[in-house]
Amino acid sequence: MQQDSQVNRKECIKFELRRVIFGTDTRLGRYFDISLIVCIILSVSLVFLDTLASIHRQYGELIGALEWCFTLIFTLEYLLRLYCSAQPIRYVRSFYGVVDLLSILPGYLVLFFPGANFTLVIRILRLFRIFRVFKLLRYLSEGNVLLRAMLQSGRKVFIFFFSVSLIVMVLSAIMYVVEGPESGFSSIPKSVYWTIVTITTVGYGDITPQTSLGQAIAAFTMLLGYSIIAIPTGILTAEISQEMVRSKDIRRCRNCLKMGHENDAKYCDNCGDSLEADL
Amino acid sequence: MQQDSQVNRKECIKFELRRVIFGTDTRLGRYFDISLIVCIILSVSLVFLDTLASIHRQYGELIGALEWCFTLIFTLEYLLRLYCSAQPIRYVRSFYGVVDLLSILPGYLVLFFPGANFTLVIRILRLFRIFRVFKLLRYLSEGNVLLRAMLQSGRKVFIFFFSVSLIVMVLSAIMYVVEGPESGFSSIPKSVYWTIVTITTVGYGDITPQTSLGQAIAAFTMLLGYSIIAIPTGILTAEISQEMVRSKDIRRCRNCLKMGHENDAKYCDNCGDSLEADL
Amino acid sequence: MQQDSQVNRKECIKFELRRVIFGTDTRLGRYFDISLIVCIILSVSLVFLDTLASIHRQYGELIGALEWCFTLIFTLEYLLRLYCSAQPIRYVRSFYGVVDLLSILPGYLVLFFPGANFTLVIRILRLFRIFRVFKLLRYLSEGNVLLRAMLQSGRKVFIFFFSVSLIVMVLSAIMYVVEGPESGFSSIPKSVYWTIVTITTVGYGDITPQTSLGQAIAAFTMLLGYSIIAIPTGILTAEISQEMVRSKDIRRCRNCLKMGHENDAKYCDNCGDSLEADL
Amino acid sequence: MQQDSQVNRKECIKFELRRVIFGTDTRLGRYFDISLIVCIILSVSLVFLDTLASIHRQYGELIGALEWCFTLIFTLEYLLRLYCSAQPIRYVRSFYGVVDLLSILPGYLVLFFPGANFTLVIRILRLFRIFRVFKLLRYLSEGNVLLRAMLQSGRKVFIFFFSVSLIVMVLSAIMYVVEGPESGFSSIPKSVYWTIVTITTVGYGDITPQTSLGQAIAAFTMLLGYSIIAIPTGILTAEISQEMVRSKDIRRCRNCLKMGHENDAKYCDNCGDSLEADL
Repeated sequence: MQQDSQVNRKECIKFELRRVIFGTDTRLGRYFDISLIVCIILSVSLVFLDTLASIHRQYGELIGALEWCFTLIFTLEYLLRLYCSAQPIRYVRSFYGVVDLLSILPGYLVLFFPGANFTLVIRILRLFRIFRVFKLLRYLSEGNVLLRAMLQSGRKVFIFFFSVSLIVMVLSAIMYVVEGPESGFSSIPKSVYWTIVTITTVGYGDITPQTSLGQAIAAFTMLLGYSIIAIPTGILTAEISQEMVRSKDIRRCRNCLKMGHENDAKYCDNCGDSLEADL
Repeated sequence: MQQDSQVNRKECIKFELRRVIFGTDTRLGRYFDISLIVCIILSVSLVFLDTLASIHRQYGELIGALEWCFTLIFTLEYLLRLYCSAQPIRYVRSFYGVVDLLSILPGYLVLFFPGANFTLVIRILRLFRIFRVFKLLRYLSEGNVLLRAMLQSGRKVFIFFFSVSLIVMVLSAIMYVVEGPESGFSSIPKSVYWTIVTITTVGYGDITPQTSLGQAIAAFTMLLGYSIIAIPTGILTAEISQEMVRSKDIRRCRNCLKMGHENDAKYCDNCGDSLEADL
Repeated sequence: MQQDSQVNRKECIKFELRRVIFGTDTRLGRYFDISLIVCIILSVSLVFLDTLASIHRQYGELIGALEWCFTLIFTLEYLLRLYCSAQPIRYVRSFYGVVDLLSILPGYLVLFFPGANFTLVIRILRLFRIFRVFKLLRYLSEGNVLLRAMLQSGRKVFIFFFSVSLIVMVLSAIMYVVEGPESGFSSIPKSVYWTIVTITTVGYGDITPQTSLGQAIAAFTMLLGYSIIAIPTGILTAEISQEMVRSKDIRRCRNCLKMGHENDAKYCDNCGDSLEADL
Repeated sequence: MQQDSQVNRKECIKFELRRVIFGTDTRLGRYFDISLIVCIILSVSLVFLDTLASIHRQYGELIGALEWCFTLIFTLEYLLRLYCSAQPIRYVRSFYGVVDLLSILPGYLVLFFPGANFTLVIRILRLFRIFRVFKLLRYLSEGNVLLRAMLQSGRKVFIFFFSVSLIVMVLSAIMYVVEGPESGFSSIPKSVYWTIVTITTVGYGDITPQTSLGQAIAAFTMLLGYSIIAIPTGILTAEISQEMVRSKDIRRCRNCLKMGHENDAKYCDNCGDSLEADL
């Protein structure tokens, strides 16, 4: 009997913890979320600042210590989530479960390569800590409207990028032939890099055409990029406009001809006539 | 009795001054505004020109004298506004009150640092004089339609910039690892600077990837920036289109089915039928 | 009597000439226009090519001779237009009259500066010959729809550019203070140049921020330019969309409810009911 | 009799081959298409990689051998298409027939210039092999909607580009005069190149204005390019929006006033009333 109540109490704590950690509807849950967001931003900022040579020299050890604190905090968070989750296996396999694990793993893996400062392995492990920012995605569920519009226009955008890559390939090959392998256009892959730099109007200027013919083709490439920049904008704008209109009711009251009712309105809000079609 | 009429006359002058200084409906008020705009533009132009070494050497003293004139003019304007305002405290605390004060303060503060030419303090004080241009905002109340469309799409734009900064952070970290700390990508903050330069298609070319892998990632970054440039355009265009349509009446006459009446029309301007819904 | 008929014949020739030179509805008139367009393009191309040092050395005299031919042709054209125009004074004062005169004047003015090759005066006179391209505007009367949309949104665009110039001025002053007069940002006018290069995402890279704070402000400037690039696009797109819709009839047949009739349709093209509202 | 059946069998094989090679509705046909796409991409990648000096030195002979394999595969494909086509002459003259022939010709033509490695002729022949990517166009018939919108707005875009080239010419001539022939603006064609680099916001920075006046004109050019970038976007967006709306049915049920029926609907899907107009 006592054991039963103990199991019950344990379940109760688990449930409360779940509300705090996974939910956002309690005050404690909101505090938990906000402090977690602060921790993520601080820890990512530290990783960024540590790459500055001057800061690494002066505060390197302090940053290392803070880094350990954050790793421990995120470990604790991971274990808590694991403990109070209703289906721990499903959490571990979920997108956020993997992100949470990747956020703490590099901290421990570094222990296995102790002597090697600044080697490639360490640098890549450091890189992985950046993926902690993806933990923030949890707090961002409003992007869906945008995402839907983008997916809607996905096929058209794919065709667009396919056509652009055809153009890029042909222009790159032409520029390689025109400017010759002794110039900055030493190979077609490099020429592809230049064409993308030009067609997207980025224009670094690290590779520029030197011959008159090359400059003429470059000018043509720029004007092309300048005009095809309009295409994805046009597609997406039309799609977003439609998405906005679609989310509005287009029913018109048969009695008073009023439009623009709420999506779930049963009666006209102007004259009271039924909006339902009588079958 | 005489005192009363004096107070009355004073009030009368105050009221007249207020109409001239704060209003735009009298001829004198318009002259006042126009001469003030000219003063603002001239004084800001002087600050700009004074930073040109050749002009500073030749006309430095003349500019200094003119600078004092403008400071005195703006001081006079500030005192007049303070005097004739109905609620002086509220004016001082308002946005324009603060801007007006900041426009004249640097001129006087310079007196406390007489020997120090070209020091940082002086330079910053000079900078503050530029804020005089904000005085021009007073004459610009038409931007509201644009502003409203921008605020309407504010939430979507925030999500957009949040997503962009996530992408920028991850790409910066990857480029830092790929190009290595010996290249131009000497730290992640510098790498972030490069990523923003690239994703916005600015492309200075002061930092460019040297390795093949780096150039491939750079090309990907450009194409990404090239396509996501479409998103804010799409959002804002859809919003402005809606704002324009919203300001038009969509009522349709029940008798002759005509659309496009004035917003406050009571009867159809074509057949005379009542546009009001009979309840 | 004979004189009368002579005057009449003269008038008749004038009228015929006018149809050929000013009109485009006769075959001869079209031939005249096409050969004139060819002359304009050829003569402007010659001016361009002549500035290439290698071509000037080799073909300088040939180009000079051709230049004289074109000047004579355009002189003949100007005199003919003057002769057969119904109101010669009005033609001389019109936009195209001035352009036609400016197209031939530099050719004769060059005679007054014979010894001076490549001096500034000659170079500016050469420049004026370029304005011959404006003669082409005569053959371009279709741009009106675009022009109308642009003028419609003129006020909004003006406010936009006013706001942009406020932002540019403030950012320039900040960058001048941050980077200091020893860097590329040696004066505020130069700083304004940099800010415009950056905010329009051109990004030459001839002036780049060197300090960390400067780079952070530069990144902010780029993101700002990146997002405000959306505003004129949004304004113009909404305006063009409206212009397109406006040119379509929105009348709906009262009998069969069909929409999309021709603008001048009197009866529904589907059921034959009158589209006119019975008053 | 036997001969007849033989002819028949031959025709039957031809027909089957045609279904596999030209069609996509059989499983074998899809396999054929996919393996062809893989071959095209691999062969074009080889041409690109071969231009990298390091790869050419190490794997030059292997790539040469693979190149021969691909040439043979495409030759076989060409002969098969020729054999099983119903109208071989028409196939040879068609766009894809020419592309297929150009894809294999350079491989054989190289045999006639055996000793000349890396000469211009060889390089141009190599270039032609890139045109193999156009073979991919066969698998892309969805771009039509985009293409239609672009053609629809063709006239407006032509006027736009005509106006832009007028502006470019005049600005180039002005910059040539202002900066003088001793600067990077050594000739008007070079100045045209700079103007296009600037107006399209590419901004290489290989040619930059040095004089104050030149920088002011450059700033104006950038702002101009920045604002006219909106025009093609606006045109295309409006056109795509219209194209999308056009493809939707605007019929409204006369009984229940419902809109948005399928294009070929005969009856209202809400109340069952006939959607056909009774004549």
